[in-house]
Amino acid sequence: MLIHLKPAASGRDRDDVREWVEARGLRTRSFVVGDRHIVACSGPGIHGDVDFGELGRRRQVDRVEPSPHPLAARGGGDRRAVLIGDDLTVGGQDLLVAAGPCSVESYDQLARSAWAVAGAGARLLRGGAYKPRSSPYAFQGLGLEGLRLLADVRRETGLPVVTEVMDPRLVDSVAEHADVLQVGARNMQNVPLLRELGRIERPVLLKRGLSATLDELLLAAEYVLAGGNASVILCERGIRTFGDATRFTLDLSAVPALQRRTHLPVLVDPSHAAGDRELVEPLACAAVAAGADGLIVEVHPRPSEAWSDADQALAPGAFAELMHRLAGFAAAAGRRLPLPDIGPRREVVG
Amino acid sequence: MLIHLKPAASGRDRDDVREWVEARGLRTRSFVVGDRHIVACSGPGIHGDVDFGELGRRRQVDRVEPSPHPLAARGGGDRRAVLIGDDLTVGGQDLLVAAGPCSVESYDQLARSAWAVAGAGARLLRGGAYKPRSSPYAFQGLGLEGLRLLADVRRETGLPVVTEVMDPRLVDSVAEHADVLQVGARNMQNVPLLRELGRIERPVLLKRGLSATLDELLLAAEYVLAGGNASVILCERGIRTFGDATRFTLDLSAVPALQRRTHLPVLVDPSHAAGDRELVEPLACAAVAAGADGLIVEVHPRPSEAWSDADQALAPGAFAELMHRLAGFAAAAGRRLPLPDIGPRREVVG
Amino acid sequence: MLIHLKPAASGRDRDDVREWVEARGLRTRSFVVGDRHIVACSGPGIHGDVDFGELGRRRQVDRVEPSPHPLAARGGGDRRAVLIGDDLTVGGQDLLVAAGPCSVESYDQLARSAWAVAGAGARLLRGGAYKPRSSPYAFQGLGLEGLRLLADVRRETGLPVVTEVMDPRLVDSVAEHADVLQVGARNMQNVPLLRELGRIERPVLLKRGLSATLDELLLAAEYVLAGGNASVILCERGIRTFGDATRFTLDLSAVPALQRRTHLPVLVDPSHAAGDRELVEPLACAAVAAGADGLIVEVHPRPSEAWSDADQALAPGAFAELMHRLAGFAAAAGRRLPLPDIGPRREVVG
Amino acid sequence: MLIHLKPAASGRDRDDVREWVEARGLRTRSFVVGDRHIVACSGPGIHGDVDFGELGRRRQVDRVEPSPHPLAARGGGDRRAVLIGDDLTVGGQDLLVAAGPCSVESYDQLARSAWAVAGAGARLLRGGAYKPRSSPYAFQGLGLEGLRLLADVRRETGLPVVTEVMDPRLVDSVAEHADVLQVGARNMQNVPLLRELGRIERPVLLKRGLSATLDELLLAAEYVLAGGNASVILCERGIRTFGDATRFTLDLSAVPALQRRTHLPVLVDPSHAAGDRELVEPLACAAVAAGADGLIVEVHPRPSEAWSDADQALAPGAFAELMHRLAGFAAAAGRRLPLPDIGPRREVVG
Repeated sequence: MLIHLKPAASGRDRDDVREWVEARGLRTRSFVVGDRHIVACSGPGIHGDVDFGELGRRRQVDRVEPSPHPLAARGGGDRRAVLIGDDLTVGGQDLLVAAGPCSVESYDQLARSAWAVAGAGARLLRGGAYKPRSSPYAFQGLGLEGLRLLADVRRETGLPVVTEVMDPRLVDSVAEHADVLQVGARNMQNVPLLRELGRIERPVLLKRGLSATLDELLLAAEYVLAGGNASVILCERGIRTFGDATRFTLDLSAVPALQRRTHLPVLVDPSHAAGDRELVEPLACAAVAAGADGLIVEVHPRPSEAWSDADQALAPGAFAELMHRLAGFAAAAGRRLPLPDIGPRREVVG
Repeated sequence: MLIHLKPAASGRDRDDVREWVEARGLRTRSFVVGDRHIVACSGPGIHGDVDFGELGRRRQVDRVEPSPHPLAARGGGDRRAVLIGDDLTVGGQDLLVAAGPCSVESYDQLARSAWAVAGAGARLLRGGAYKPRSSPYAFQGLGLEGLRLLADVRRETGLPVVTEVMDPRLVDSVAEHADVLQVGARNMQNVPLLRELGRIERPVLLKRGLSATLDELLLAAEYVLAGGNASVILCERGIRTFGDATRFTLDLSAVPALQRRTHLPVLVDPSHAAGDRELVEPLACAAVAAGADGLIVEVHPRPSEAWSDADQALAPGAFAELMHRLAGFAAAAGRRLPLPDIGPRREVVG
Repeated sequence: MLIHLKPAASGRDRDDVREWVEARGLRTRSFVVGDRHIVACSGPGIHGDVDFGELGRRRQVDRVEPSPHPLAARGGGDRRAVLIGDDLTVGGQDLLVAAGPCSVESYDQLARSAWAVAGAGARLLRGGAYKPRSSPYAFQGLGLEGLRLLADVRRETGLPVVTEVMDPRLVDSVAEHADVLQVGARNMQNVPLLRELGRIERPVLLKRGLSATLDELLLAAEYVLAGGNASVILCERGIRTFGDATRFTLDLSAVPALQRRTHLPVLVDPSHAAGDRELVEPLACAAVAAGADGLIVEVHPRPSEAWSDADQALAPGAFAELMHRLAGFAAAAGRRLPLPDIGPRREVVG
Repeated sequence: MLIHLKPAASGRDRDDVREWVEARGLRTRSFVVGDRHIVACSGPGIHGDVDFGELGRRRQVDRVEPSPHPLAARGGGDRRAVLIGDDLTVGGQDLLVAAGPCSVESYDQLARSAWAVAGAGARLLRGGAYKPRSSPYAFQGLGLEGLRLLADVRRETGLPVVTEVMDPRLVDSVAEHADVLQVGARNMQNVPLLRELGRIERPVLLKRGLSATLDELLLAAEYVLAGGNASVILCERGIRTFGDATRFTLDLSAVPALQRRTHLPVLVDPSHAAGDRELVEPLACAAVAAGADGLIVEVHPRPSEAWSDADQALAPGAFAELMHRLAGFAAAAGRRLPLPDIGPRREVVG
């Protein structure tokens, strides 16, 4: 239960509310969101035993909110767009396509990827500098060097970048180089990381955990939002099931089901879900048809030589074809996918 | 391992092949498919210990096939369309939309449904006469009376019908009244039923089991095909996962993954997967974008009064809107969804 | 909702009840269980809109029961034992161990298996005559010949037998040869089969479906019980999950969770769950410790030569060791596992 | 692929090995484990294209190891015990039972829990100071104050303590107060945290992720081992499936399947898996029968008042009964569960 105080409420008013709640055996935590204080209540009896009606009628109380994730909740309102950098938005009329390699491997690899995906219409460059690998013996990413390469290529191409952060100690340094900070599926419930991301002003791309329910995803977003960072973008990337024909099972029902519950934008990552480049196109098209606000797609200049996830990366030519195909589905969905006037740059096609 | 004999092979040739195989400790079963005999071999040692090379070089042997489901397998060939009734096909250029109520409840309910879905562009009427319900106390379908109502409405509207059969003893009587016989998800591996369906000449709509892998689905189809019935249509209808936001998790990757492996058409049932009418439209659009050969959608003249699955049925008006929306996605997918010239018949909209 | 009428209720009383219910827009079905009539109600509004209080106070009505599976439900009562043949029970103080080969292959194989498992303390012989195989090309069981071999070996050894039936048309002929009829996991919701099994007087061993919830398992049992056959034995045999270290994931929490809800006995099949003979012993011991009423275990005279499920069958010697080990766990669980005075018969150990 | 160098190998030898590998297009990483250097190789072609035979025959190379987790792998050897504090071991003949409250709430609650579980035979006190909660509004643990209470109660009772750490920045301060550091299921693949835990000398209790395969669990352990910390204890705590009768599905096959692959001890947490105190006892008994090296059980002086996980905590009296019951299963399993001479201390039973 969340007690939203009015902006005019004083410290004394807050203390009164907290005392009222604690006298009923519950614990309280206070948050400041925008110009208001919120008192969150928890403990045994929170579901039903305590009648909050009296509290809701107090002068300094705006409302008593039963939603488990009130900041992420859509309520009856519109969905809202999130601003990336100065002039890119996600969650509005235009679809956002982020593309690029799984891992940053070298300046050459990253620059070729960036020019290729930009030429085909991607507006955001993806690339991992810190890679969460199952094995300690696998390539773990170039780290800080990778961040610097992303910043260099960002400067040269004008493409904003999204990259993963796994370590709460690195949030500031990643935020310095990247426009969007990604939380990977395996870190969706990494609370110290989510808290650090709540402190910064960069948008956060939060991937759904492999076995996370939609409520758990929204509660993870709520950690960031409750920290004060209002820019969270959700991403469906496949869940773990018994299915063995794909790496994960892409759950496209999550797109409309999330959009019904939250105002946050929802992207889809068809590449990690499929784990197989031949399935990326149909799943990407399906995601747009299901109403996704955009996609994040793996593209590599020479997919078979990729240092990680080689099976699922698209070559630049295949990505350019995908973008043309997506434009048709975007139109059918009543969305826009603005493509460059000319086709992909010939010289960068792998 | 399957030994395909040449059409010219004699009974003596077949005996020779069987003896060769059985002398190596394996068991054999024989099938006739078209103009050829196939000898299937099974038993310990089938994977690797026995070298079939010598057999493959025999004069009367066409080829030795390692596919687990050679009749369903696409091989390198084209996908093939299945003919329903005299002039309806599925798996070709045109998308097929089947629609209608979960259960046949009455002449009035069924006729209203049929006229409404036909008016909106559906080409096949769905409706259950025998319903596989979890509870013995739930409505089990009208049975034979339901079949007769389907036949009546089929005659009046000209719409062919698809209906479920659960009992091998009823295959002939259902085949008498229906154009397509449906095997429900809970019966996907009901072997006696699949065998009976292999004997008839009606197309079979085979739904994926709740926890079936794609290989298991193709092997279930192979039972029907190996019985001599070449007309099998597959259907993805959601799998069982931990997800709790929908009734089942629609696995759209199954569409391209199946189409890569089999020549059989692949439909999608968004209604049962979602269990929620608000999610039917986005999932239906996504299915078409993923390349599905068609859809099967629940429509009821008064959804809230449906005797089964009331939460997921579309009203006729919503279905007509869905069809118009789908036409755009069909075009983007390079497919056709022919719609009637005029909109849905006003008088039947619920 | 189930309306239980008193034994003294007349046909007129039943009609009154049905009219009352149908006047409120619901449908009714009638069942006779023991000396009583039950009227089952279903339809929209069954959950909440209709107030059954008035009906419950009628003179001829015993009670109005909200359980979805009232015949399987334990209520507050004791669990009940099921009688197999003349003098074997399951669900009482003694644990029941059923053992034998996956498939009946020959007289010799079956007889050797039977003497071996009986010598080690098994009280029920398992063996499949009709095998539900994923592939139409795999060995499908010896069929009627297999049933006859089971009957022969049953006569010679005195061991009652359990064997699977898949086809509703074969229920009577299987019931003629077997003491317990097994419904396999893939047929748990095969309604025509369950209905036929409700008509007979043999106990039914009902295996949990690969993706069935416990409520669905109890509802499947309810089909048999509502048909008039009071002898149903449940069996947990592993569910389908993402786990890849075993064939299925044995869900031992199902044992106490079922026993809390139902009076029916609960067995565990560790062999099919594991798919790996080395894991059978620890899972069998764990099942007994979790409170299972017995086990069903695959044993083959020469496991590596088994025609089906060769990886999971125990050799007779390993089975005898397992039984000795199980006896210790049975004692710790407050149950009895009576073992023969002497060890397994030397001459039949494979 | 891992190249284990001999202890006598020089820096020059290591460079030679790295050059050989890198000349074949692979990347290398070096680790020091004990007195040896290991060179890990990764990259495209690692599976099959490169023939490491020549390298394995070099004088300074001990062996070329294909295991994905060579430090966790059992190889053909014995399982090994892990030492906790000065004189407690896990993985040997004696079973280890850890018990205590989900969250540390107060000195009084923790001290009462500790005396109660010690009196019943638990040898390790569990209690969370930092709690990974799904919701930012739920109680997050007492943090540093909780650690201090654990240290106080540890001093008074002599019970070593296990507590969770989520934040890599807090590893040192948690290690100062706790004897075993727990990694929760949601952090199993939190790489920065695993790396920090590889640096310290305290044992790490690593819980299996909700949707982690056994290989992934062993690879997560390998991160800690490869960092130089040889003391890792694994814990099965239930996986996420479609099952709805328990909070998670306890996968007891993981116990023997892990013990076959790794020398590390394997505990089971029945409390989190069940989410229901009535199921804790049967699952705990089953875990011991399956061969678990111990248990971790939630106990609270007044379960219904617990600040977190109130449904699954045992009262002290129920825990004492469980321990007596477990002793019988331990004996049947050939293990020891040493219990205090007298029963649980009367005065601390809640």
